[in-house]
Amino acid sequence: MAHYRLTATEFLSSGVKVEDYVCSLLDRVAARDADVQAWAHLDRECAISQARLLDTIPLREREHLKLFGVPVGVKDIMYTKDMPTQHNSPIYENDAPAVDSALVMLLRNAGALIFGKTTTTEFASVTTGTKTRNPHDSSRTPGGSSSGSGAAVGDLQVPVALGTQTLGSIIRPASFNGIFGFKPTWGAISREGVKICSLNLDTMGFFARSIADLELLADAVQLEDDEKQTVRFKIEGAKFAVCKTHVWSQAGPGTTNAVELAIKLLQEHGASVEELELSEEFTNVTKYSLQAFESDGKTTFTNEYIRAKDKLDPVLVKFVENSSKISHRDHLAALDGLAQLRPKIDIIAGRYDAILTPSTVDEAPTGLSNTGNSAFCGMWTALHVPVVNIPGFVGEHGMPIGLSLVAPRYHDRRLLRVAAAVAPVFEGGGWKLGL
Amino acid sequence: MAHYRLTATEFLSSGVKVEDYVCSLLDRVAARDADVQAWAHLDRECAISQARLLDTIPLREREHLKLFGVPVGVKDIMYTKDMPTQHNSPIYENDAPAVDSALVMLLRNAGALIFGKTTTTEFASVTTGTKTRNPHDSSRTPGGSSSGSGAAVGDLQVPVALGTQTLGSIIRPASFNGIFGFKPTWGAISREGVKICSLNLDTMGFFARSIADLELLADAVQLEDDEKQTVRFKIEGAKFAVCKTHVWSQAGPGTTNAVELAIKLLQEHGASVEELELSEEFTNVTKYSLQAFESDGKTTFTNEYIRAKDKLDPVLVKFVENSSKISHRDHLAALDGLAQLRPKIDIIAGRYDAILTPSTVDEAPTGLSNTGNSAFCGMWTALHVPVVNIPGFVGEHGMPIGLSLVAPRYHDRRLLRVAAAVAPVFEGGGWKLGL
Repeated sequence: MAHYRLTATEFLSSGVKVEDYVCSLLDRVAARDADVQAWAHLDRECAISQARLLDTIPLREREHLKLFGVPVGVKDIMYTKDMPTQHNSPIYENDAPAVDSALVMLLRNAGALIFGKTTTTEFASVTTGTKTRNPHDSSRTPGGSSSGSGAAVGDLQVPVALGTQTLGSIIRPASFNGIFGFKPTWGAISREGVKICSLNLDTMGFFARSIADLELLADAVQLEDDEKQTVRFKIEGAKFAVCKTHVWSQAGPGTTNAVELAIKLLQEHGASVEELELSEEFTNVTKYSLQAFESDGKTTFTNEYIRAKDKLDPVLVKFVENSSKISHRDHLAALDGLAQLRPKIDIIAGRYDAILTPSTVDEAPTGLSNTGNSAFCGMWTALHVPVVNIPGFVGEHGMPIGLSLVAPRYHDRRLLRVAAAVAPVFEGGGWKLGL
Repeated sequence: MAHYRLTATEFLSSGVKVEDYVCSLLDRVAARDADVQAWAHLDRECAISQARLLDTIPLREREHLKLFGVPVGVKDIMYTKDMPTQHNSPIYENDAPAVDSALVMLLRNAGALIFGKTTTTEFASVTTGTKTRNPHDSSRTPGGSSSGSGAAVGDLQVPVALGTQTLGSIIRPASFNGIFGFKPTWGAISREGVKICSLNLDTMGFFARSIADLELLADAVQLEDDEKQTVRFKIEGAKFAVCKTHVWSQAGPGTTNAVELAIKLLQEHGASVEELELSEEFTNVTKYSLQAFESDGKTTFTNEYIRAKDKLDPVLVKFVENSSKISHRDHLAALDGLAQLRPKIDIIAGRYDAILTPSTVDEAPTGLSNTGNSAFCGMWTALHVPVVNIPGFVGEHGMPIGLSLVAPRYHDRRLLRVAAAVAPVFEGGGWKLGL
């Protein structure tokens, strides 16, 4: 097997030299970049020199480095001390803050190799597409805003990558690219050194091609539940809820079929799946999350608006000019309303091993101009609960479709345990990951 | 009058050249720095060259620059592209991220001159004192964590300075240094490019020697209420509440006397002042805010802990090691509990022109090892409401004591209007500002 096909976990036990792994990935990028274009910045020499340096570390000193030599793609709204950070904005063209974001520092400290910067929609705040294409069909969007991270991991150009989610920016591209995406509990990973979109919604997270890799990353950032997860989770006898949500009418045939098939597969493996209809008040989450997004964005982008309004995406100009006429009163009602619903969803989600819910309205749409609809993701982001996208299903055009598992806040590790058991079950949906 | 005595507003209408103003301030620093030591970084040549550049801007182009030539002290946890940012941490000694925090960009864009970096307690997160001394008595603390910003403005070394408040880091040093401090509504000013202490509590704010200067800064960052404040606020007929809070027993004689005198002064000027006792549930705010602070800090400082635990303040080591054994469940109960109280305090505060409440337990204590008690500040920070410290009173040892005015969230400009009328009334308390 070519080295580039290895997941991070496989690489760590493979005995392959870091340089060999990195060179294989760089060759994969070289072969595929014209089609996929996942990178905002990638310096071959920088990656190789990091690899060589890591290869000189004595074996006994590698033991505590949980991510020794693991190449990581970094979304280009996160500061990296040795690479530019440009936010896909002409205002920050060639900008290179000489500092690492906290998450990048954490990963470097665990022995990770910062491979390159992945594309993002402008400031990770709009759905205007990037240059990046879906690796499984270059006429389709890879999703966004973490477009490059999703596409690079989906195309085997890097085993893991970092993302952020304000509405649907991790789960959506994970679904569209046929890989795992993990949005932990809001606030569980430091956002220091990352461009802000919404103070109340932005969440750090990961892309990978196995749950084991997500566990590795979770270990590296010391993500812990109150209860340590020691027992392996079994599907047999497990209790799931399927929550179609108040936006179910937006689901296309691919998602509708995926949900039905997922229920069938779980039941066939001995799990119970009951339908969960959330109370009426949860329908407000969509409105609240969009108001929080816009109003928070007004504060965030006032800076760029004043400096270079003409270089700012029209959507963000509208945020600053408050075209939607959202008053502070509305904004606070949205924040307070969301805050009231969070403990309620914790209680509801706590009754199940996980809530199963759509990740996206359907497979990735054609065209690159828009990164897709976030209707199914935004509500969980705003509720601050952890979400993982599990690939497995296939849409009408052969594109991947994933489904989300949701748990109560700060049950991140429990969610990954459940996901590790669900993932092989969902392979019955027909999507072949990493081929 | 020597130029360094000018407030920002006075300077703007003085016709004084920027270079002359800056040189006068630099001379003031030179004369006083051995006693006060407010600066973490101050480069005379950098300040003068910025001033000269500003003086070359044609008059007609200065009109839209609301802060043309106004020197600003920047707390050393905020990134500045042309100066080091060291967080008073050995881990970040000589660190110089080549990027401006959003607030610094906003101010530069309004014509401000970034004068230097002011001292902070380590990561603005502990009460271990800095080298900085209170300008009114060098045996006493200037307060913290925005120690240098408070002392520099109090000592006429710079007209305005930037701070952050997680519990009491703006209001406390403002009170201790006998100046105005303004902590706007949480989230009203972008925190981008600023070291995080607590995601849920950190708030950006300002120090100045006049309310007019705070208004200038509020204009520059486009801080707006829902209702535009057009009418001048009059004390006569105004309605205040005095809220002694559940920690009133901690108030020393200076604060007790200040509150009594303040009530008397307001009444003498025709205002009504009624006592406000908050319901029992508000006593939880102290516990909640400290739990949120510690638990958020655990996430924040995991990075520094892993990199260099031995160089981290023991208090922050304890946060990461969770010595207080705060579970995620406790943390969420604190966050959710605070969220529930916020709309309630908005309604209560909305019944008055402002709530009057202590800023600190008393005048600045002797010694530099500890920056003081934040009991009276922390609760308002956690409730996200805007607070302004009004100087005016004097403690048993002749040190300044300020009092706080509080308004509902996003009534920041209204609060400044009220403060502008209250400030001259409080001058009856005997503190002579800027002498």
